[in-house]
Amino acid sequence: MPQLVIREVGPRDGLQNEQPVNVERRAELISALCRTGLREVEAVSFVSPTAVPAMAHAADVLDLVDRRSEVRLWALVPNARGAQMAMDASVDALTVTISACPEYNQANVRRTIADSVDEIGRIVEIADGRVVDAVISCVFGSPYTGDEPTATVPDLIGQLSDQGVNRFTLADTTGMATPHRIERVLHKTGVDVGLHLHDTRGTALVNAFTAIRLGVTRFDTAAGGLGGSPFAKGAGGNLATEDLVHLADDDPMLETGIDLTALLACVRQFGETVDHPLPGRIAEHGPAR
Amino acid sequence: MPQLVIREVGPRDGLQNEQPVNVERRAELISALCRTGLREVEAVSFVSPTAVPAMAHAADVLDLVDRRSEVRLWALVPNARGAQMAMDASVDALTVTISACPEYNQANVRRTIADSVDEIGRIVEIADGRVVDAVISCVFGSPYTGDEPTATVPDLIGQLSDQGVNRFTLADTTGMATPHRIERVLHKTGVDVGLHLHDTRGTALVNAFTAIRLGVTRFDTAAGGLGGSPFAKGAGGNLATEDLVHLADDDPMLETGIDLTALLACVRQFGETVDHPLPGRIAEHGPAR
Repeated sequence: MPQLVIREVGPRDGLQNEQPVNVERRAELISALCRTGLREVEAVSFVSPTAVPAMAHAADVLDLVDRRSEVRLWALVPNARGAQMAMDASVDALTVTISACPEYNQANVRRTIADSVDEIGRIVEIADGRVVDAVISCVFGSPYTGDEPTATVPDLIGQLSDQGVNRFTLADTTGMATPHRIERVLHKTGVDVGLHLHDTRGTALVNAFTAIRLGVTRFDTAAGGLGGSPFAKGAGGNLATEDLVHLADDDPMLETGIDLTALLACVRQFGETVDHPLPGRIAEHGPAR
Repeated sequence: MPQLVIREVGPRDGLQNEQPVNVERRAELISALCRTGLREVEAVSFVSPTAVPAMAHAADVLDLVDRRSEVRLWALVPNARGAQMAMDASVDALTVTISACPEYNQANVRRTIADSVDEIGRIVEIADGRVVDAVISCVFGSPYTGDEPTATVPDLIGQLSDQGVNRFTLADTTGMATPHRIERVLHKTGVDVGLHLHDTRGTALVNAFTAIRLGVTRFDTAAGGLGGSPFAKGAGGNLATEDLVHLADDDPMLETGIDLTALLACVRQFGETVDHPLPGRIAEHGPAR
């Protein structure tokens, strides 16, 4: 039976666009997620607090988290300096981001793709054997060019592998993927990749399920479908963790290890914290059984 | 290449729960839909105007529609009397409803399933050779029992066939279907059925795509995802026509014959008419290409 490995990114990709939440509350949310059966949680990022105020005080948050040996805590790091801070805070694993679209990479991290690859090499050295996952953005379409850079993705994965990156996640950053694009890209990359899907156009769940059927087992999701800016044009929240768990729970061929009831309690906590409706659907209407 | 046959049900299943829209506007909306490339439109129902005020004046609406020979106009009829009214108004085809769940059938049409089968037999006689499609509700789960009545659905289809029904649509009335349930039910019924999916739990698109992959080609959808009561607990809108067309447009193996731009113009007209946000996603964010 395929075991889906769901990496909860709500505390990072979810909260980063919200009004800043205090350190104690962020730690409570992360600790609660760690008690649902989730084995991977992206908890913080070590980015500039000026650029992303909601992600400030990452080390303080981690200090307060009730860490459990079976849950791998991830931090997103934008550069070598952030990687060192993450190591000092004893995170278990690092995510780094790079785009398959040169225009997007320049706009997002102000570097060429080649410079990003070099910086990721330095991060891998600092990580000292810990898992480094390169999250490649705009793989299924770019808001700049419209195209999916399918042809360049395997090459980029090769370059990053040469730098010591040992895990890859393909991101649909602005929700442009469709089942057909999922199939086309995975045909090029193989299925030993994670998917990080946004639900801008309501396709995140069908894209995930298409990938599951092809053999993908790793998914980034956010409790409540938090993330992006669900109520603003052009950006959508992440695939909601509970919507994927609900789908898997109804399928005897799929297993997540996550307790949906405990997860839905976390979704309510996130909802109270951000104080606006969340786009995830199962929390509102309840599971089908 | 599989040609998807999309039956637009927005003027009927979409508008029936809204504040009544005047006859002229309803006819305009239907006429506009008939110019998008849609070949099937459920335009009206001949039900009691006391029970469903928004569906009153069905014959007057049809009188004003700019009918086109290539578009089959459907009317939902609850009984023989409604069927006669539909015939007098020269509709092309009739939908009838029956539930696979006895409790739901009793609550919805105040008849036993056996009585509904008999009444549908009378409707088939009145239809005089026109297509009659039996829409079977709660096939993927019932709000009363929770279960899906998989075992009884093939038997019910057999009984209705004996009455002369020549087309069947399986409805996920309260949005309880998942890909696994779709697969399990279609394994019993075969794929020569239509699907009428509601998006209560955000699964309508993944359910539709799962069915497409299994060979189903007929779908009921509503412009904008109108229907049910999208903003009330326990009910969700229909699968949005434009969300399904958008998915198909991005897949060289699928064809709908529908012009997405013209369809999105209709969605805007529906949105202006009902004067509240619609749940369909493509109208808000635009197609991925």
